[in-house]
Amino acid sequence: MKIALAQLNYHIGDFTGNLARITHAVAEAGKQGANLVVFSELSICGYPPLDLLERKEFIDACVSHVEMLAEAIDPEMGVLVGGPEPNPGSVGKMLYNSVFFLHGGRIGQVFRKSLLPTYDIFDEYRYFEPNREFEILEFMGRRLAVTICEDLWDEQPFENEYARSRLYTCNPLEELIRLRPHAVINLAASPFSHKKMEAKQSIFTGKAKRYGLPVLYCNQVGAQTELLFEGGSMAVNPSGSVVASLPFFREDSIMVDLDALIRSKPAPDAGKIPERIEAIAGALICGIRDYFGKLGFKTATLGLSGGIDSAVTLALAAEALGPDNLHVLLLPSQYSSDHSVDDSVEMALGLGVKYDILPIEPLFMQFRETLKPLFKNLPEDNAEENIQARIRGALLMALSNKFGNILLNTSNKSETAVGYGTLYGDMSGGLSVLGDVYKTDVYLLARYLNSEKKVIPENIITKPPSAELRPDQKDTDSLPPYEELDKILEAYIEKQLPREKLVALGFEPELANRIITLVNQNEYKRYQTPPILRISSKAFGVGRRLPLVAKY
Amino acid sequence: MKIALAQLNYHIGDFTGNLARITHAVAEAGKQGANLVVFSELSICGYPPLDLLERKEFIDACVSHVEMLAEAIDPEMGVLVGGPEPNPGSVGKMLYNSVFFLHGGRIGQVFRKSLLPTYDIFDEYRYFEPNREFEILEFMGRRLAVTICEDLWDEQPFENEYARSRLYTCNPLEELIRLRPHAVINLAASPFSHKKMEAKQSIFTGKAKRYGLPVLYCNQVGAQTELLFEGGSMAVNPSGSVVASLPFFREDSIMVDLDALIRSKPAPDAGKIPERIEAIAGALICGIRDYFGKLGFKTATLGLSGGIDSAVTLALAAEALGPDNLHVLLLPSQYSSDHSVDDSVEMALGLGVKYDILPIEPLFMQFRETLKPLFKNLPEDNAEENIQARIRGALLMALSNKFGNILLNTSNKSETAVGYGTLYGDMSGGLSVLGDVYKTDVYLLARYLNSEKKVIPENIITKPPSAELRPDQKDTDSLPPYEELDKILEAYIEKQLPREKLVALGFEPELANRIITLVNQNEYKRYQTPPILRISSKAFGVGRRLPLVAKY
Repeated sequence: MKIALAQLNYHIGDFTGNLARITHAVAEAGKQGANLVVFSELSICGYPPLDLLERKEFIDACVSHVEMLAEAIDPEMGVLVGGPEPNPGSVGKMLYNSVFFLHGGRIGQVFRKSLLPTYDIFDEYRYFEPNREFEILEFMGRRLAVTICEDLWDEQPFENEYARSRLYTCNPLEELIRLRPHAVINLAASPFSHKKMEAKQSIFTGKAKRYGLPVLYCNQVGAQTELLFEGGSMAVNPSGSVVASLPFFREDSIMVDLDALIRSKPAPDAGKIPERIEAIAGALICGIRDYFGKLGFKTATLGLSGGIDSAVTLALAAEALGPDNLHVLLLPSQYSSDHSVDDSVEMALGLGVKYDILPIEPLFMQFRETLKPLFKNLPEDNAEENIQARIRGALLMALSNKFGNILLNTSNKSETAVGYGTLYGDMSGGLSVLGDVYKTDVYLLARYLNSEKKVIPENIITKPPSAELRPDQKDTDSLPPYEELDKILEAYIEKQLPREKLVALGFEPELANRIITLVNQNEYKRYQTPPILRISSKAFGVGRRLPLVAKY
Repeated sequence: MKIALAQLNYHIGDFTGNLARITHAVAEAGKQGANLVVFSELSICGYPPLDLLERKEFIDACVSHVEMLAEAIDPEMGVLVGGPEPNPGSVGKMLYNSVFFLHGGRIGQVFRKSLLPTYDIFDEYRYFEPNREFEILEFMGRRLAVTICEDLWDEQPFENEYARSRLYTCNPLEELIRLRPHAVINLAASPFSHKKMEAKQSIFTGKAKRYGLPVLYCNQVGAQTELLFEGGSMAVNPSGSVVASLPFFREDSIMVDLDALIRSKPAPDAGKIPERIEAIAGALICGIRDYFGKLGFKTATLGLSGGIDSAVTLALAAEALGPDNLHVLLLPSQYSSDHSVDDSVEMALGLGVKYDILPIEPLFMQFRETLKPLFKNLPEDNAEENIQARIRGALLMALSNKFGNILLNTSNKSETAVGYGTLYGDMSGGLSVLGDVYKTDVYLLARYLNSEKKVIPENIITKPPSAELRPDQKDTDSLPPYEELDKILEAYIEKQLPREKLVALGFEPELANRIITLVNQNEYKRYQTPPILRISSKAFGVGRRLPLVAKY
């Protein structure tokens, strides 16, 4: 039996588009002799549909489009497609997260997801009832164990040391193994994390090896707002070697002969995991491209400050959208150094990106004039710094409003963590590109992006980071060096280590306390940030939910 | 046996404060002869602790403070207190949502929550394993069925017509009834909704009547960021009549003699549900007060436009924080009508609130000057309107930054729904007071707030609503009258009716389509709004999660 894995980029709620995409992939696979075509989790509507699952018309459309698909495809072929299924029972959640087997012009067996991830960015128990009954798909004389994403993740590789690995009291694969399958198929919508690339692969190789069965894994690809799905679908042989795999962040498909897979040897390049920074760059470029593409926008703007964050954001955006679709603003103040403007101009010219220089000093003067009756002769403080950032935000948004560009936010994860940014100022934008990238990784990204062709001027990479909101300001005036800061942040945010453990790891207690306090005190700012492209296992945004008024 | 219900306002994570509050309430109840004191769900840490539950040091503190409480109280008395309990099993979620029975200086029986709400604002399955084993608390010769909040909500009164009422496959009260209890106790953290006041009461009266048992319900009171808990704890007799009840939005306690309760008649005023607008006003005042109190802030600022939204926000804030703690700005432009300033001054003077008038025209001129190289001679459009709103936002935030005030956002639910507002402009603020109040209810609130003493000038209530961002602008230039708009919005957002059903209800198809499109297209704006005090069953914010890039 020949099985095709079709790794596609779905648009949530675009039923016509998704149906066309799936039908086309089935036809193509059919031409190459496929008997069975496997798509990804909730492929008919795209993952994650979130609260659209609570709307009757949305579920009706899911159901009818699966039916249309069953009728549209070659009746000789089999197709496994994901979609929400109304729960026929009278109690429990309204829906199952299901996979439909289509064959002979109709919907055949239905397989339901047992393990419903409800942590971090996942909210599946919000919508779905867990499955507790197991059956096998028999097709062309082969017995296939059909599983859905988390069903294979009965043990979690959490980064939080305190989290437990076994979140579920049921193990669906153990149940299915009792039914003596010849292979395991997994339809997934598994988001990217640069820290989980090996762990994810080992889920599939580990299961294959443990049960001596081939595993066929088909993941969604592409970005859904902040969530990035890398694809990376693969076929694993019964000895746990990856025999064939699909690329990261690109639609593609492969064909696997099941009998050959059972006897196969590992292919040299299959399942090769990309280098970390390369993977992050690919993820962010995909995130920008899909955010614009799926919203129907083409052009972006951003403020180019002469610093590393806006430079890296620009380089990524140029790759994702093309330099012709970018229009950047240089917004110098009296505190900006000359090289900030020069370096930015050099970069924009090098990339061929349209730019304008709008000095903000006259506006800053006018703000001070307008506020004089209130501020009188009070000393300057962060109020004046924030005014400059908000002038820049307002000018960028004016450009965005006038010409229909989306403003890209350029804040990195380190400064977002400690609240080193101005709400409605530099924290503005439709999408945060680097909000899940620590500053030390922003530097590595810069080097990576420069490796083929120099797009970011060397001076931008080597000069000491500064917000340039007062004379001779440096980031290190108020923060430790980023090498140190990022380690503390990662230990506190990703690993969720308690204060005492940070100190035990060698961080200076006063510094650790100060950083923890800054992180906790700035939840209110992050509540209002744009969606942040998620590349780690714990990004700011929907996957991290903290009370704003906690005394903690 | 005498049972006290202690309805307290907890501060999430303030273990020392919460412990002191609970210990004090036990001592007071003891003086009045109570044998058992009942607190609310997760009382030791405050509800909802959200992802603090994933932190080891937070759980350790919960556990140790329950132990400290057991030792601190009179060993003769019994106490039921809520807190997270580490799951002693090796699989399943890390925690149970539990109630601890404290007696004799130690922790006795532990009762675990069975039904874990995971919908709307609730994410309990994110953290907790559901209970499936049931036992009774035997104390002083009485058998008590201890339940936790949702455990009694096996049937849901959802406003979404499509939602099903029976979300759970288990019915904990049915299980407990088999163990022949004398009374049902419910420790809750049940948030306010002005639409569910009757439905909530009927949960308890219905259960009491159905099983012929008294029901004692103790709810949390006070605000936790956007979530408002009204309290309204009550004792219900076996015939389903409310015999005693606690006020809305105020800490208080009552003592109930269990034997008397079993034989009691309804008390005339007990369980009286406040009038809807009065309840909303109380909820919003509590929400403002606790947001400031729990964050340690005293003073607020807001922009007083001469319109109804900012006037009602100001009146509520004056009630919550005191007029002395407010400093408002009047920010007229060349498009502002004279009466806008006059009405605002009249209101500020009447309340005794400090105000300043800062005309924004010079700043608006300077923005146009600065942008001239880009905008050239393009016609004015919403870009220029938004600049005015962002100038106001920046001036208000400057005041906030300079003097340590929190900016109150004044947007209402109707305009937030259709995206009639400027990101980083009038959508700025630390807290949105009216973001869950439809415009038609804002008017009713104004009338209510004026009923005792006129605080809002009549002219503000009667003039046609306008954003005053261009000459002679009226809201009805681009929107239907609010009476009609609000009905469509409520049907689409709260009831989640599909497009066809709206038309079947008599709304003009083109209008319904336009409003639905506006709501869907503006998810990206709402992603960045401040937390919104939640008074309905479906507020914008954490309880409503929609994909930004959906094609829908």
